[in-house]
Amino acid sequence: MQFLSDNAAPVHPAVWEAMRRADATDAPYDGDALSRSLDRAFSDLFGMDCAVVWTSTGTAANCLALATLVPPYGGIVCHDDAHIEQDEAGAPEFYTHGAKLMLAHGPHAKLTPESIAAVIDPIRDDVHRVQPHAVAITQATEQGCVYAPGELAVLADYVRGKGLAFHMDGARFANAVAHLGCTPAEAGPAHDIDTLSFGMIKNGGMGAEALVFFDPARAAEAKRRHKRAGQLQSKGRYLAAQLLAMIEGDVWLANARHANAAAATIAEGAGARLLYPCQANEVFVRLSPAEREALREQGFGFYDWGADAARFVTAWNADAGHAARLAAAIAAL
Amino acid sequence: MQFLSDNAAPVHPAVWEAMRRADATDAPYDGDALSRSLDRAFSDLFGMDCAVVWTSTGTAANCLALATLVPPYGGIVCHDDAHIEQDEAGAPEFYTHGAKLMLAHGPHAKLTPESIAAVIDPIRDDVHRVQPHAVAITQATEQGCVYAPGELAVLADYVRGKGLAFHMDGARFANAVAHLGCTPAEAGPAHDIDTLSFGMIKNGGMGAEALVFFDPARAAEAKRRHKRAGQLQSKGRYLAAQLLAMIEGDVWLANARHANAAAATIAEGAGARLLYPCQANEVFVRLSPAEREALREQGFGFYDWGADAARFVTAWNADAGHAARLAAAIAAL
Amino acid sequence: MQFLSDNAAPVHPAVWEAMRRADATDAPYDGDALSRSLDRAFSDLFGMDCAVVWTSTGTAANCLALATLVPPYGGIVCHDDAHIEQDEAGAPEFYTHGAKLMLAHGPHAKLTPESIAAVIDPIRDDVHRVQPHAVAITQATEQGCVYAPGELAVLADYVRGKGLAFHMDGARFANAVAHLGCTPAEAGPAHDIDTLSFGMIKNGGMGAEALVFFDPARAAEAKRRHKRAGQLQSKGRYLAAQLLAMIEGDVWLANARHANAAAATIAEGAGARLLYPCQANEVFVRLSPAEREALREQGFGFYDWGADAARFVTAWNADAGHAARLAAAIAAL
Amino acid sequence: MQFLSDNAAPVHPAVWEAMRRADATDAPYDGDALSRSLDRAFSDLFGMDCAVVWTSTGTAANCLALATLVPPYGGIVCHDDAHIEQDEAGAPEFYTHGAKLMLAHGPHAKLTPESIAAVIDPIRDDVHRVQPHAVAITQATEQGCVYAPGELAVLADYVRGKGLAFHMDGARFANAVAHLGCTPAEAGPAHDIDTLSFGMIKNGGMGAEALVFFDPARAAEAKRRHKRAGQLQSKGRYLAAQLLAMIEGDVWLANARHANAAAATIAEGAGARLLYPCQANEVFVRLSPAEREALREQGFGFYDWGADAARFVTAWNADAGHAARLAAAIAAL
Repeated sequence: MQFLSDNAAPVHPAVWEAMRRADATDAPYDGDALSRSLDRAFSDLFGMDCAVVWTSTGTAANCLALATLVPPYGGIVCHDDAHIEQDEAGAPEFYTHGAKLMLAHGPHAKLTPESIAAVIDPIRDDVHRVQPHAVAITQATEQGCVYAPGELAVLADYVRGKGLAFHMDGARFANAVAHLGCTPAEAGPAHDIDTLSFGMIKNGGMGAEALVFFDPARAAEAKRRHKRAGQLQSKGRYLAAQLLAMIEGDVWLANARHANAAAATIAEGAGARLLYPCQANEVFVRLSPAEREALREQGFGFYDWGADAARFVTAWNADAGHAARLAAAIAAL
Repeated sequence: MQFLSDNAAPVHPAVWEAMRRADATDAPYDGDALSRSLDRAFSDLFGMDCAVVWTSTGTAANCLALATLVPPYGGIVCHDDAHIEQDEAGAPEFYTHGAKLMLAHGPHAKLTPESIAAVIDPIRDDVHRVQPHAVAITQATEQGCVYAPGELAVLADYVRGKGLAFHMDGARFANAVAHLGCTPAEAGPAHDIDTLSFGMIKNGGMGAEALVFFDPARAAEAKRRHKRAGQLQSKGRYLAAQLLAMIEGDVWLANARHANAAAATIAEGAGARLLYPCQANEVFVRLSPAEREALREQGFGFYDWGADAARFVTAWNADAGHAARLAAAIAAL
Repeated sequence: MQFLSDNAAPVHPAVWEAMRRADATDAPYDGDALSRSLDRAFSDLFGMDCAVVWTSTGTAANCLALATLVPPYGGIVCHDDAHIEQDEAGAPEFYTHGAKLMLAHGPHAKLTPESIAAVIDPIRDDVHRVQPHAVAITQATEQGCVYAPGELAVLADYVRGKGLAFHMDGARFANAVAHLGCTPAEAGPAHDIDTLSFGMIKNGGMGAEALVFFDPARAAEAKRRHKRAGQLQSKGRYLAAQLLAMIEGDVWLANARHANAAAATIAEGAGARLLYPCQANEVFVRLSPAEREALREQGFGFYDWGADAARFVTAWNADAGHAARLAAAIAAL
Repeated sequence: MQFLSDNAAPVHPAVWEAMRRADATDAPYDGDALSRSLDRAFSDLFGMDCAVVWTSTGTAANCLALATLVPPYGGIVCHDDAHIEQDEAGAPEFYTHGAKLMLAHGPHAKLTPESIAAVIDPIRDDVHRVQPHAVAITQATEQGCVYAPGELAVLADYVRGKGLAFHMDGARFANAVAHLGCTPAEAGPAHDIDTLSFGMIKNGGMGAEALVFFDPARAAEAKRRHKRAGQLQSKGRYLAAQLLAMIEGDVWLANARHANAAAATIAEGAGARLLYPCQANEVFVRLSPAEREALREQGFGFYDWGADAARFVTAWNADAGHAARLAAAIAAL
């Protein structure tokens, strides 16, 4: 009964089928029919004009986006728990040629105008200081929380008022939309987002993420950086097929709902032990070392979260029975 | 009847099957059982200790290798037709943080001690000049030619005598081995090669190349650069499965032999029109614009090669009948 | 009566004289007799073998040092008030090709084993996290405080125990030595320091800092990076002359003592208003906006330090009378 | 009798005097009165609006300029003898974060529309190829030759027609103007030049070059890169003083005329031995090893230029008698 990571899950059948259908001779790189249809498909999904570049990882998607938004001498405000700061091995610095991550703080791994201001207001506008050029947020956040459309609107106002670009790391964007019950646009892009890395791999894909540019003109530069980063695969149709399979028939949304439901089951069992509100497919639970040991002895797999808690992640193929057993096991501690 | 690119070919059935077998929950990134078995499998193949990192492109493989061999202030000698110079969009400069490609000349896109010396001998050893740190060759070359073991031994002697590192871009390494009829080691690694990007995608894979380090200690640094470059996919088992499928039962070699045979058929038809010896799966043929037009009218697809020639590439799934018809059509011009 | 910055001070007469003496034809770059004598002169000063590279700024000295100590994918622990983080415009990221500054906290802008541990202990040793490679401290610190030899010994033990490199930003190293009354080595280099940027410009020089490598072998690589950074001036003898003039007859030490004495006078006047102990040539004083206004009306120039304090800096040519008047004026508030 | 390098020459008295006059307390960095007067002074000199940034080396000036003109994924066309390719240790790649130098050929180290076209016309406009973004020329060239205004006009037309930026490395711009007898603008800036590194150091300065932006708006970005490169000296007034001393009273022009005259004397002696036309302060003379040896025995210092020639450089303080003796000695061989 594995709750370690949604990355460990297998690939959704619809994705497999689409990949097999793509298995014929077509133009190499992103010149194939499927890759060429992505802009249209995602523009329809969002109801907004956009251009899409596939990448093999969320890290590449985030960092290509940031490289088009921020010069090497600029700064990017993010939460200090942000994946781009904590888990991407310096990839933002690599892709941007040395831009500085400027770390904001606050509950639920969320940014607010106030927490951003605390970082950027003290920065004198002179050449001795790195100046902020962009704000990057994660939807859902690294603590499994979701920005509501109202929060995003307030943030967007602030970010634009400061003349900054706005990136959304959407590794679990699907889970956020599933939680909010709003349109995909309302969960992010409609709020003046420049670039969204729309995660598909954790949610049923195999090796393709969608990097979405809401100013399609930016995609031209991004495609040069994409090739230069060794991201332009020669058989791109197998990546495009994955992305299209995920959005056709809203597989992405169904998968995220399923994962969220399993997480909600666990969260219910956790009750007052919950560290943060459970709004996506991650559940953070206060558990002593002995309690964690007890759960592991019952066959549950998960990561520690600091000294006194654990993280449980549910995937698109979560077994509802396993989630219920975990919930009961936590409740019984 | 398509001879545009081996990148346009579909995926080999053995690769599909291995990917499907990998479709279960396992550890994310490269912690899965398949990824962990790669070092052993390739060490057996080469009869030499090595460590393997999968990448999504040959560009990433080449450039990660170069970044571990060459400091930002160093130089890399390569042929001026080399893929790393002509077709990787500045990726070597990106991954190495600005190392300089130093361009040598010579027939068949091959380097020799003499052509390397012509580049590096005039470089004074002072701080004003970028100093060479590595030599990179392509096996088979960008003109479809193959370095024989004897040529490699001579090169290796020279390269080591100069204290340089030695990288082999093996995008079509399989085709070279198939042509030479020697062991995989003799076609490169045995000759003091530090790093080999062993191409699998053109030869029947989907999206996985094998970057091979013959000094396994180097792989540790490479893995940090690999993550930092956004190359560490979270479902790495699907890449490892591809690589293993290719080398099990020598699928890689059978595929390359098949492609080479089709190319040989075309080369025979081309006769005196051949621009370079046909030793792998590419055939470069002197053809006037009118002649090319005539071939295209007969349904043959291919790229122009400068003003007066064309390039025909055969893939692992080449149709022998198509190749024969093309050969006849050229002969009949 | 100016206490804005020691950078605003003029050039010491001994430096002028040495520059004039150097005004003859000699070998360009660093091939002149003066530049070639630097290693010897500084090795004598420290009683330790070292190699010296002149630079035009402290920023270049710090960042060249860091670039030789830390790979692009590594991290550098420093205090969050450190000059390299706050005032060098991202130069560390530029010179190192994207290494990450890891910010520690603590009073007096000093690092301790505990404050470093708080930063690095939570970093898992896996490829997702940037790993620390070096620790950088400032002597005297950005809050005008000095590490005593005993503190340095404890730090060195810790830093070496963790396998990290150790850099000292010595923009005001002279003031620290003057305060400690110890040998130059005891104020830093003797404690396993790898690289010291020994500041001369604020202390009476014009445009030359000394970057000191206590492992002379490292200087060879640094010289390549130095040229590549556009730091290798063609008339280097005028820089070498400055450095030699400063250390001959201990001009550097006399100048620093003079500046420190003026600062001590001011600190005495400030009494309980002192924000931090005054141990070098900077005095940080709690002053309300109205009090600052009153001082400015009396003709004193200085920078605000946040909302409720001011920073007064004394230079090598500080006017003792001005310092006394300032001390009295503060005491009289 | 030294003809090795104009970098070996001492500093002009007018420069010394200006530096001494600057030796008072003033604002640090480039906030001083002298630095703030540079834009005006150079705008007057060129009769064109421009903004000036001082740097400590020509390498820094060239590479800062290129970094503002060319993105990391772009290319810069230059002659393969260009200083930026041959003698700057990879600084262009460092400052631009990996842009590619694209090498053109042609006599006298000059570019022409034809030689540029030979480099850029074969570059397909796709993401696999680095695309050209700028052309960089040297005035006077690395072979001591000068672009006439007519040649520059033709080049400018071509460069602009291709949508490229245009940089001029003017390490010996003064010598070119002295040779042409035209206005400073006509020797470069008037021909749509974006950026000029106007060399002062070889021509009588000590450690300050003028980087000139003819679109003053570009200078704002350049100043951020300048600080980030460790080029922003804290006592900038001593650099500004040098630049102003050189242009006041046309010291720069008088110095260059003097150097050129001495070179012309030598060139006359060389007669048919001249390798290239002598149009600035460098003379390239066909001389066998034995002949060079003979000259050295007579006390002349100079560098070899390949196997069968020598380079003689005259400086602002060239001794006319020495030049005449050298001319006679060559003529007598």
